[in-house]
Amino acid sequence: MRRTSFETWQCPIARSLERVGDRWCMLILRDALLGTTQFAEFQRSLDIAPNILTRRLGALVAGGLLVRRHSAAQPSRQEYVLTECGRDFRSVLWALLAWGNRHYAPEGPSVEIADRVSGTIAEPVLVDRCSGRLLAAPAFGPVAGPAADDCTRQRYSARASQPFVAVPGDTDVEHRRPRP
Amino acid sequence: MRRTSFETWQCPIARSLERVGDRWCMLILRDALLGTTQFAEFQRSLDIAPNILTRRLGALVAGGLLVRRHSAAQPSRQEYVLTECGRDFRSVLWALLAWGNRHYAPEGPSVEIADRVSGTIAEPVLVDRCSGRLLAAPAFGPVAGPAADDCTRQRYSARASQPFVAVPGDTDVEHRRPRP
Repeated sequence: MRRTSFETWQCPIARSLERVGDRWCMLILRDALLGTTQFAEFQRSLDIAPNILTRRLGALVAGGLLVRRHSAAQPSRQEYVLTECGRDFRSVLWALLAWGNRHYAPEGPSVEIADRVSGTIAEPVLVDRCSGRLLAAPAFGPVAGPAADDCTRQRYSARASQPFVAVPGDTDVEHRRPRP
Repeated sequence: MRRTSFETWQCPIARSLERVGDRWCMLILRDALLGTTQFAEFQRSLDIAPNILTRRLGALVAGGLLVRRHSAAQPSRQEYVLTECGRDFRSVLWALLAWGNRHYAPEGPSVEIADRVSGTIAEPVLVDRCSGRLLAAPAFGPVAGPAADDCTRQRYSARASQPFVAVPGDTDVEHRRPRP
């Protein structure tokens, strides 16, 4: 079956998913961020078929998230090392981890993010770097950026006022637009 | 082909991916967060085959991210509405959006997150809710939580000191562990 390419979509989420929009790719990145570099280690950790692992590692190399190189310790072996782009994916995985702990860990969290020195457990939330404000709807929302084409502008301008419409049960309201 | 289930894995990332680990699922959630509720609207926006859309919407309903109900405006029509869990996925999508803008938008961002009232563009970063500290490695890292089994404890204790090993080119260093 033909696989739709999101490469040219004017959407940063779709373009990201073009590189990592696969369960195995994200779990490979999870392990790489824990220090895994060897094919056999990935295979053991993920219990993944070798042909699938080969394809996914290749995709992550092609997408610029991993580089394949000879191991310094054992030059006959290849290893997979994260690029800056791959390491930067940590924030997405930790947001996913926090979401999973909130919704799919009825027995309590089995993995958490902690301060490495003090051991204090962190609660990951997304904020604006400059103001420190929590990035929640409807106070914040997606808008067309400087590189948006007409179609994207139309899509996001049409949506601009929508998040202020009351959604039953929407509790993540930081503040409401003042009424005119 | 048999699809591996991550349902019972002791990993919040894997469990999350069990529900949303598909490119189409994440894009359906993106559109749902923009207010899309109708099958035809999703199909038009995503240019997705109807059978694939039906399957993915069904998976999101089964996973507790969407509910299917009769439209109040047109009771003969069905609509898909986000649950609290589905709305909460916004933080993951916005982290993915920010990552995509950093790495896959050479022409500049076409979609950004902004303050709805002032129009100020936000820069999404992951922080600890309590301390406000940036969640970056190696200062922070994953650790075994209270529900971890022996295998998970071993996996994460073995990794505990690893992020402090210098990784060439690792620039996202917030602070280093004091040397003994």
